[in-house]
Amino acid sequence: MSKKRIIILGGGFAGANTALQLERKLRRREDVEIVLVSKENYMVFQPMLPEIISGNIGILDTVTPIRRLAPRTELFIRDVEHVDIAKQQVTLSPGFESASTVLDFDHLVVTLGNVTDFRRMPGLHDHAFPFKNLVHALRLRDHLIRVLSEAAITDDPALRKQLLTFVVGGGGFSGVEVCAELNDFVRSCAKRYFKIDPSEIRVLLVHGGERILNREMPECLALYAQNLLQKRGVEFIFNMLLASATPEFAILGDGQRIPTRTLVSSVPSSPNPVVLRLDVPLDRGRIKSDLKLQVEGFDNIWSLGDCALIPNPKEEGFCPPTAQFAVRQAKTCANNIVAAIDGKPQSDFTFTELGKMASLGHRRAIIRMFDRVNLHGFVAWMVWRMAYWVKLPGFDRKIKVGMSWLMDIVCGRELVQTGMDQPTSLVEAHFETDEMVVRQGDSRTGVSIILAGKAVILSESGDGEPQVVGELGPGDCFGVIEFLDKSLAQNSIRCTETLDIVTYNQQELEPLLLLPEIRRSFENLRPEQKE
Amino acid sequence: MSKKRIIILGGGFAGANTALQLERKLRRREDVEIVLVSKENYMVFQPMLPEIISGNIGILDTVTPIRRLAPRTELFIRDVEHVDIAKQQVTLSPGFESASTVLDFDHLVVTLGNVTDFRRMPGLHDHAFPFKNLVHALRLRDHLIRVLSEAAITDDPALRKQLLTFVVGGGGFSGVEVCAELNDFVRSCAKRYFKIDPSEIRVLLVHGGERILNREMPECLALYAQNLLQKRGVEFIFNMLLASATPEFAILGDGQRIPTRTLVSSVPSSPNPVVLRLDVPLDRGRIKSDLKLQVEGFDNIWSLGDCALIPNPKEEGFCPPTAQFAVRQAKTCANNIVAAIDGKPQSDFTFTELGKMASLGHRRAIIRMFDRVNLHGFVAWMVWRMAYWVKLPGFDRKIKVGMSWLMDIVCGRELVQTGMDQPTSLVEAHFETDEMVVRQGDSRTGVSIILAGKAVILSESGDGEPQVVGELGPGDCFGVIEFLDKSLAQNSIRCTETLDIVTYNQQELEPLLLLPEIRRSFENLRPEQKE
Repeated sequence: MSKKRIIILGGGFAGANTALQLERKLRRREDVEIVLVSKENYMVFQPMLPEIISGNIGILDTVTPIRRLAPRTELFIRDVEHVDIAKQQVTLSPGFESASTVLDFDHLVVTLGNVTDFRRMPGLHDHAFPFKNLVHALRLRDHLIRVLSEAAITDDPALRKQLLTFVVGGGGFSGVEVCAELNDFVRSCAKRYFKIDPSEIRVLLVHGGERILNREMPECLALYAQNLLQKRGVEFIFNMLLASATPEFAILGDGQRIPTRTLVSSVPSSPNPVVLRLDVPLDRGRIKSDLKLQVEGFDNIWSLGDCALIPNPKEEGFCPPTAQFAVRQAKTCANNIVAAIDGKPQSDFTFTELGKMASLGHRRAIIRMFDRVNLHGFVAWMVWRMAYWVKLPGFDRKIKVGMSWLMDIVCGRELVQTGMDQPTSLVEAHFETDEMVVRQGDSRTGVSIILAGKAVILSESGDGEPQVVGELGPGDCFGVIEFLDKSLAQNSIRCTETLDIVTYNQQELEPLLLLPEIRRSFENLRPEQKE
Repeated sequence: MSKKRIIILGGGFAGANTALQLERKLRRREDVEIVLVSKENYMVFQPMLPEIISGNIGILDTVTPIRRLAPRTELFIRDVEHVDIAKQQVTLSPGFESASTVLDFDHLVVTLGNVTDFRRMPGLHDHAFPFKNLVHALRLRDHLIRVLSEAAITDDPALRKQLLTFVVGGGGFSGVEVCAELNDFVRSCAKRYFKIDPSEIRVLLVHGGERILNREMPECLALYAQNLLQKRGVEFIFNMLLASATPEFAILGDGQRIPTRTLVSSVPSSPNPVVLRLDVPLDRGRIKSDLKLQVEGFDNIWSLGDCALIPNPKEEGFCPPTAQFAVRQAKTCANNIVAAIDGKPQSDFTFTELGKMASLGHRRAIIRMFDRVNLHGFVAWMVWRMAYWVKLPGFDRKIKVGMSWLMDIVCGRELVQTGMDQPTSLVEAHFETDEMVVRQGDSRTGVSIILAGKAVILSESGDGEPQVVGELGPGDCFGVIEFLDKSLAQNSIRCTETLDIVTYNQQELEPLLLLPEIRRSFENLRPEQKE
């Protein structure tokens, strides 16, 4: 008799908990195997992620290794390349092998969540920090330390102002929590930099609503949070959305340019592209599932969590995309899959939301429970931590996290960079009209290709106004002379409308010149020198 | 009156401690400023680094932020581009500015250590894990978890064997310590992977001597360590050096090829290139300093630590490159610089080595003290930890590290990947004669350029032997058809002598095709199709 195989796509709360619940139901059964496909080998507890910024908890304490949660599940840390529902096959990106891996399934559980999507906001993909997983959190943390270090040594007041301005987009749960932790971190760290005047630090929260958490929390709690953050130095810009971003500016809906090197945006999420390519009924980019968590029209395809559109069992509308719902859905889904395999009756998902919480850093939080009780301040923060702590898997992890919280009371901020903030070889950048893209004499240039927009080449001679010596448009490139001659920037480049470019690091492009054919092309691209 | 500026290049034990000692001596003096230039914002305690692999201690506990150690020092996290000793100027790579930073100095302290250098061992640069800093340790740790995860799900026995074979090159302190921790980690982690048979795991230590630690430790201690590691499953290959490495093999001096995906090499270090370019007297790549730590022929240039050649005050020969010596040299150097500024007499460096220690993981260590006393086992491990703990800067850090050590007794292994093991866009690779470089049908290819060596193009048709359809040599490339057509590998490539290639990720190269000139060149590079 061949084994039945259940494949779960996605290792977030919904996916990992489905595996966990399946293992519990299937204990000692050899006739079913569980496969989980995830991009990361850990499950992130999103609400704790902002605490990584401040280093209040150990870096690894916010996340739970999936293997620990579901030790008998086969875990594939791979990308999903293709799902063939008719053939009941999933194709995964290669591991150490050179070819893709194809797996057959009897039941498929889709819990792919959604992805950050900055497409409608020019430049945010290139210049804003997303904040969804551990790598994002570590990268932002490294960047904040770098920005403070550079602010402490620069002699240029304009640059220092940019470096010490921090902009967070979005006043929902994630935006508020990130903003609170970021504000705490930069202000307390700055004390270690004797050349930084704390009053120079600005932390701005840009939000589309008229107050923070306007959709998520009752007014009294939201205002409490708002006042608390304001007292700690956060400035708010309400009724305003981020419009775009460039290397040196965050640009608001009304055109205002805020000079900054740190823009965090928690706002836009869109359906996972893998979900969009699935041959299942979708509504608003989410998979239509019923209360059994079965996808409409299928009896072996299941979907839950943020990527699924599931009727809310207790209220009008649909289940919100929260961990609370995902965990309960996972339990129902696992039960129903086992029932399906065994030919037993399936049951409906049912759950009433317990409450909503937001941490505000510095031992303060706000909580709304059972749609009736409001808590705020230190007590709420204690409840928030306890609620998380109870859910930690395993006794030893509970102790470890408990201890690092205790330690936090006596210990100072951690200033070590983990080295995540590494330069990459290929960088995309967006500029708004009239920004300087390259300044004559710059030492760090690369070969840039214009994807969209226009720019002028300026020659700055010793005296007076820079002269326009050329124009550039889509498909044109600049930086070739500097690349071939290893020289400083020969000219300045200023864009005359919004400009999108992609820039190759010189060093990384170097080996291509070994190909005589390619070298000749680059030589041909070298513009005529002006005398 | 203008301030005197002391610039310290390098943030290792020697550099950071020089800053610390200078701050102590110069407290409240406004006439001198201290600048420290370092690649990282933390100082690594090398002997603790291997513990990161096993996660016995918190990731950040092995390192000390320099800012904490020397809060009044201006810290530049930059690369040194150029030192002009005659002009008394140092040029640093740009920060957020676009141009390099130039700083004048009155006194220059060179503590640039040395760098990992695999140049004499083909392929090690591309395929071996170095082990000198935090990023290296985190990257290796992520890789080990990945290798175990893939071993647990592959159906290919040859690949599984490769994945579960771990090779460490070098049986000195660093090699032995890394090997001990790596062995502990993979063996204890493997228990969580129900599909991995622990007896399949091989950990090999390759060493040029006839026993481990043959230069560093007396025979009885070395043999104790060797037996202990052997009992825990480490295999030794003595009187043998690593010769080269390829993506799938570690190759020994006698030509033996060990199939592995994990090769750690602690062996080769060479002078820092910045030191080699300095206009100061060098001997064997090290800067000639006297017992005052002054560089021969200069009264404002100082050098200490691993990059300096300093007579050993108590014995024949020169100071060994150890943290113990660096710390004491730093104190003398700081005193002498302040004496020089104040026109007071300078003193000589003097120090007798206290002892040598090696940790063997799992609460065991060996120690040689005062050239007389030998300690081994648990007691030695306790002494080793205490010796480190005493040196931790700050009370809160002491508590934190102490607690994570206590926690370690109750807690299991941490399996979370931090995400350091990211694929890069430009990959260099080395192959030995007759290895397969590309297999027909591979899905993950790129555009590769041959730097050295020769290869043949093979066409594998349905039946029988692959046919040679072309030859490749230096300056040739392959993977262009697959890049332009987005297809699977059309042919196999096998090298006919040792081969060095550099491979561009297809996606990263894509934007270059926007340049018509370059696209045409790639089209021209497309070889004639065989019918």
